[in-house]
Amino acid sequence: MRVTGFGFEVLATDPDTGARRGRLATPHGTVESPVFIPCGTQATVKTLSPRDLEEEGVELILCNTYHLSLRPGAETIAALGGLHRFMAWPRALLTDSGGYQVFSMAELRRITEEGVHFRSHLDGSSHTLTPEGAIAIQEGLGADIVMAFDDCTPYPATPDQARASLELTLRWAERCLAARTRADQALFGIVQGSVFPDLRAEAADRLTALPFDGYAIGGLSVGESKGQMLGVLRHTAPRLPAERPRYLMGIGTPEDLLLGIAAGIDMFDCVMPTRHGRTGSLFTRQGRLSIKAAEYARDARPVDPECACYTCRTFSRAYLRHLFVADETLGLRLNTLHNVHFYLTLMAEARQALVEGTFAKFLDDRLTAFQGSPDGSAAAE
Amino acid sequence: MRVTGFGFEVLATDPDTGARRGRLATPHGTVESPVFIPCGTQATVKTLSPRDLEEEGVELILCNTYHLSLRPGAETIAALGGLHRFMAWPRALLTDSGGYQVFSMAELRRITEEGVHFRSHLDGSSHTLTPEGAIAIQEGLGADIVMAFDDCTPYPATPDQARASLELTLRWAERCLAARTRADQALFGIVQGSVFPDLRAEAADRLTALPFDGYAIGGLSVGESKGQMLGVLRHTAPRLPAERPRYLMGIGTPEDLLLGIAAGIDMFDCVMPTRHGRTGSLFTRQGRLSIKAAEYARDARPVDPECACYTCRTFSRAYLRHLFVADETLGLRLNTLHNVHFYLTLMAEARQALVEGTFAKFLDDRLTAFQGSPDGSAAAE
Repeated sequence: MRVTGFGFEVLATDPDTGARRGRLATPHGTVESPVFIPCGTQATVKTLSPRDLEEEGVELILCNTYHLSLRPGAETIAALGGLHRFMAWPRALLTDSGGYQVFSMAELRRITEEGVHFRSHLDGSSHTLTPEGAIAIQEGLGADIVMAFDDCTPYPATPDQARASLELTLRWAERCLAARTRADQALFGIVQGSVFPDLRAEAADRLTALPFDGYAIGGLSVGESKGQMLGVLRHTAPRLPAERPRYLMGIGTPEDLLLGIAAGIDMFDCVMPTRHGRTGSLFTRQGRLSIKAAEYARDARPVDPECACYTCRTFSRAYLRHLFVADETLGLRLNTLHNVHFYLTLMAEARQALVEGTFAKFLDDRLTAFQGSPDGSAAAE
Repeated sequence: MRVTGFGFEVLATDPDTGARRGRLATPHGTVESPVFIPCGTQATVKTLSPRDLEEEGVELILCNTYHLSLRPGAETIAALGGLHRFMAWPRALLTDSGGYQVFSMAELRRITEEGVHFRSHLDGSSHTLTPEGAIAIQEGLGADIVMAFDDCTPYPATPDQARASLELTLRWAERCLAARTRADQALFGIVQGSVFPDLRAEAADRLTALPFDGYAIGGLSVGESKGQMLGVLRHTAPRLPAERPRYLMGIGTPEDLLLGIAAGIDMFDCVMPTRHGRTGSLFTRQGRLSIKAAEYARDARPVDPECACYTCRTFSRAYLRHLFVADETLGLRLNTLHNVHFYLTLMAEARQALVEGTFAKFLDDRLTAFQGSPDGSAAAE
């Protein structure tokens, strides 16, 4: 199928690392890459309005097919004009296939050749998600970018288990391509293969022989070590075609994003900035800051004096701490806004460094600043 | 004390009812009256940012001395530059005295001539609030309008109990006036007297002989019937001096506000729009709508097609229902925004009718629309 309204171009490539500055065209606007994609699981980036997100410069949001198909139901959203209209988001959307969510429910699902049989986490009702069903649901939701239904390989897996899982994912990938009917949605395939280099290589080579509009690396951040994750990333990303967008799913810390960009990745999503926002853990260039700490009770400074977000322009650490301690939901929103801004700013700075030819120095400077933190964001002060 | 930066003028009076269109001048901007004052109990109007409130045209917010003095502490807020700066609210603020909150904690407080001895609802620690202490705390917080510390008479009360309570309130009122040191804060006295017309009249006459900058009617909405409340309102409001602002504390429904305006009241505060927003009960001209109702699951219409708020301009009932059912805090915020807008619009329309000399018809039309609802806002549709 020839997809219309979707395109990808590489504007600059770092000669040392292969990192790319790119641009995706979608029916709902362009997306500058490398891009961080906030998670809007239930058709809302938790605590933020569409206007908040537009003002922060968000160009692409991810929503979860699994959650939306159970509540309010994909048919309901389709009847209301699709997901963009439902959530009043005028810019680009990406939906996952539901594969990762059902994978996460180990106790509640059974995998067959046909698809995945599972019970709803909401009411225990029985459902079956197939490649064809996942495509049909995503076509009803109407996102700009949709994902193939894959089998997310558990960790740890034996080579035989990983082989079986990647073969199933490849058969499902072909069924997804055959099932698609909308020419205005880009469809991405997903590389599995666990932590085994030869399997990842084979999965990438066979998947990229199929006519997807982009390629994702899946099955990471499922229990493997940071070293294993980086190994797979660095081994797999270069095998994906240079002329298509590359998407690292569900990753990660600020450090992970920088290393992902350096490996040639264009797109990232992760719940980390939004979830950490709701637990009061705020990102700064000097590391993370836990806003509930007593030391901030009379701290008149913003979270990050260098930050230009609404939260930092307007409120003190003392006020944010008060909101958090007093269980005021405004605090969750202001924290989330700051963290999303931090992630987007990191991406914007990476893009600028790539255009200016200073990416190697930028990468080195930022990784050094993050150094000493197990998750790439040391506790501040 | 001569107060600077504060003033009140009556711009128009309805000849039939005595309803007034007025304007308060404060050190943080003018406030058009009749005005509805959203409640920002813990230094935040729950779910809304200062920017949200400014965009909705809010000119005055109430914060609670009781809550803030326990958490984060009045000294903390004073050390951070006062309440305006702490909560980043550039417009006018009003603080209550804490009297009503400690009154509400019947099990935890003991009243003496000195003041009220109570235990914190947060940690059980012992505190004493006196007229002098309440003024000192409010001076530290730095609101534009502060309230005298009163004894809120319980309901039901015998005439003797009500008499003792109003005498105590009057003695405390004099102590508050003697204790004030800031000339840039207006200080309002509070009329008590329970549901007894003669006591209310005496309380009003003796209180208004004291040099307060405005006068409030307190001790209502504490268990008395709607008829009793309206009786006190209509009996007491006209006894308050025409050249000072009149404030009906803690009231009420949209219908109550209209009846209050008709009785000559200038200022109202109530948690109703914000609290109802968080429980999904949304105000419309046709009555209240419970957004969680199944009938809205596929309803593409806004909450109120006549409403110009961000929520109604942007989102469907179906989306708001989804957010509510899915426990997404964005829903609480969008609902609250709508309800606050509804209350502010009602006040703006009343002000316009007063200026145009059409208040009697406006009042009649709106009360008829609300008719049939026990709380002035029948369940819609």
